Amino acid sequence: MLNLEQLKEITRQSDSKIVLLVIDGLGGLPRPETGKTELETAHIPNLAELVSMGTCGLSEPVSPGITPGSAPGHLAIFGYDPVKCLVGRGILEALGIDFDLKKGDVAARGNFCTIDEKGLITDRRAGRISTEENARLCQKLSKIKLEGAQFLVAPVKEHRFLLVLRGEGLTGDASDSDPEQVGVAPLSVIPHSPEGERTARFANDFVAKAKAVLADSHPANMVLLRGFSQHPNLPTMNEIFKLNPAAIAAYPMYRGLAKLVGMKLLDTGGSIEEEFDTLVKHYAEHDFFFVHVKKTDSSGEDGDFDAKVHVLEEIDRFLPKITRLNPDVLIVTGDHSTPAMLKGHSWHPVPLVLYSKWCRADHAREFGETACASGGLGRFPALEVMPLAMANALKITKFGA
Amino acid sequence: MLNLEQLKEITRQSDSKIVLLVIDGLGGLPRPETGKTELETAHIPNLAELVSMGTCGLSEPVSPGITPGSAPGHLAIFGYDPVKCLVGRGILEALGIDFDLKKGDVAARGNFCTIDEKGLITDRRAGRISTEENARLCQKLSKIKLEGAQFLVAPVKEHRFLLVLRGEGLTGDASDSDPEQVGVAPLSVIPHSPEGERTARFANDFVAKAKAVLADSHPANMVLLRGFSQHPNLPTMNEIFKLNPAAIAAYPMYRGLAKLVGMKLLDTGGSIEEEFDTLVKHYAEHDFFFVHVKKTDSSGEDGDFDAKVHVLEEIDRFLPKITRLNPDVLIVTGDHSTPAMLKGHSWHPVPLVLYSKWCRADHAREFGETACASGGLGRFPALEVMPLAMANALKITKFGA
Repeated sequence: MLNLEQLKEITRQSDSKIVLLVIDGLGGLPRPETGKTELETAHIPNLAELVSMGTCGLSEPVSPGITPGSAPGHLAIFGYDPVKCLVGRGILEALGIDFDLKKGDVAARGNFCTIDEKGLITDRRAGRISTEENARLCQKLSKIKLEGAQFLVAPVKEHRFLLVLRGEGLTGDASDSDPEQVGVAPLSVIPHSPEGERTARFANDFVAKAKAVLADSHPANMVLLRGFSQHPNLPTMNEIFKLNPAAIAAYPMYRGLAKLVGMKLLDTGGSIEEEFDTLVKHYAEHDFFFVHVKKTDSSGEDGDFDAKVHVLEEIDRFLPKITRLNPDVLIVTGDHSTPAMLKGHSWHPVPLVLYSKWCRADHAREFGETACASGGLGRFPALEVMPLAMANALKITKFGA
Repeated sequence: MLNLEQLKEITRQSDSKIVLLVIDGLGGLPRPETGKTELETAHIPNLAELVSMGTCGLSEPVSPGITPGSAPGHLAIFGYDPVKCLVGRGILEALGIDFDLKKGDVAARGNFCTIDEKGLITDRRAGRISTEENARLCQKLSKIKLEGAQFLVAPVKEHRFLLVLRGEGLTGDASDSDPEQVGVAPLSVIPHSPEGERTARFANDFVAKAKAVLADSHPANMVLLRGFSQHPNLPTMNEIFKLNPAAIAAYPMYRGLAKLVGMKLLDTGGSIEEEFDTLVKHYAEHDFFFVHVKKTDSSGEDGDFDAKVHVLEEIDRFLPKITRLNPDVLIVTGDHSTPAMLKGHSWHPVPLVLYSKWCRADHAREFGETACASGGLGRFPALEVMPLAMANALKITKFGA
């Protein structure tokens, strides 16, 4: 496989347009009663029509057996090796709220949480306090003074906030304070290497002072930190693919991921119809669109098979808004699987359909895990999605003499 | 995947014979009226019989989405990683005419071309002058004197010639003078790095003097240079696979590629029948034969769907000349796709059928893109063709304890 530098040499700008519709957590597992997955259960005639004109396959986000987080899942389909391009949770949160990160900043994802009188965590999300309450608490936290470093806190949503440490010699090489379970005390942040020592020291100092400041703010009487990280400074999709890419995503993390690779973030409503309308509205302005639908993943995580089916049907109902634009390349896939049966992300490869005038259509006639397994693309790394999209848009020239 | 050093450890010489029939630009795209590709349209009963006894798949020359030039396309099926083993156009031309390259030589592909009175290119091929005229013009060019370096020019075919720069401190790290379009002036050769400076200087000096020498030779009144490169010094197929390989190819570039990996070049006529007869004649002398058919690619590049179909039918008609030899392994594939619908090389994976006594036959019954997609080999890197060929010829021993 070509690396990004080699790809850069053979990509070219052109007027053709690519739409990449990412249905978060798309892949599923069959319900035992029917033997059919969420996608196979849904009534999705528009997707089936797309499949009958296109070529299908199963996309492996990272590699077989590996369950990806949202960052590797998305980076792979954006063309970035998810094993090499690691993005910390803290950086994602920062990007998602458009936080102005400076060179050398270390970001962490914060949760307001509830601890009992023994200091043990009783609720990792502090009863999902309101975003307004979160903002008020962040104001309180911002009065803390750290010895030897600056910091900034910013509310994200509900119980989630961003902590940014700013100073000399900081790295993301430090452990989480969030034990990701209740009934235990928050952990000390521990450096993974000498380079992480200053980060760990300031983080522990911050947590100790936050605990004091929040003592009377029950249920949000403590903080948990995770995902200490620095900006990975990836080359942009414009540099690699010569695209002018735009992102249509309502959730901060996905907006953050899109920004990380240099996409323009379009303002959009959060419903599927509103997102697709945003695409229609801005269609003339860009040559690549990443459209992100979140609710499939949430319903999968909730274990709600039927809710996931309904979201898929909603997508299908509005799909003609996209197909009527006649994009040169239309890809519908997911960043990973979230089977309702497993109530979480899983390692299963993800259905994908690619349509273009030059796609060499296969015999698949419906959009589902089993149909895609015998599609023309077979089972393939998600990292190949962008080269395939670019090729089908006739935006790649010949490699080698 | 094993690297060449690791492969070398487990390959062994034996009497079994491998025939690799490379149908240039084999893969295609369906004609909209029929939904069938060139290969699916052709009446090819002998290939279908081979398929019914063999195992099929789709070979990815470089990686999904990447359109290969002829060099990476062939090197991959010869077992050389096409992303690592880069071969410049100039070196290919030199090898194709059996030019005696010395260590350190830099070769470039030259075109005689036509420029107008303003110096703008009107025909990149000077009306495809005859090879005789080309030879006469090369004689004129050879009288040029360069300051500080030697050079040699040699006619190739029609408008194509070879320029070899010989001297101290030369590398191939310089840009083309050929803009690959008409209506513009030839470009200056620009070094890509300090190591390319001397090459660029001598090349520009040569071009300026050639322009003067050719002033009265309309339509061949200028030269274009591209693909400055040095010999990549690859290990031979004999060193890696312990084969005594021979090439049956009529076109210079493919003879050049074969020579690059240490194949013996057999004298052959250029028709399909003559090439297959050459195989029959020399069958006792070698244990590996690369047989190259060019006309599928040319008709694909011309956008002539029917012509490509006819070449495929011609191959099929003469195929029994090969199958009657009973090679232990017979592989029929291409170096890349050249769909008539696209009039050029494309990124689409290439049909492949492998027959041996030990191939584990699949259910495919016809030789076509769709049938191969669900064949026993699936979609796989072309780099795996040689290990598969060697294994099926029982020429690879066990890897590891």
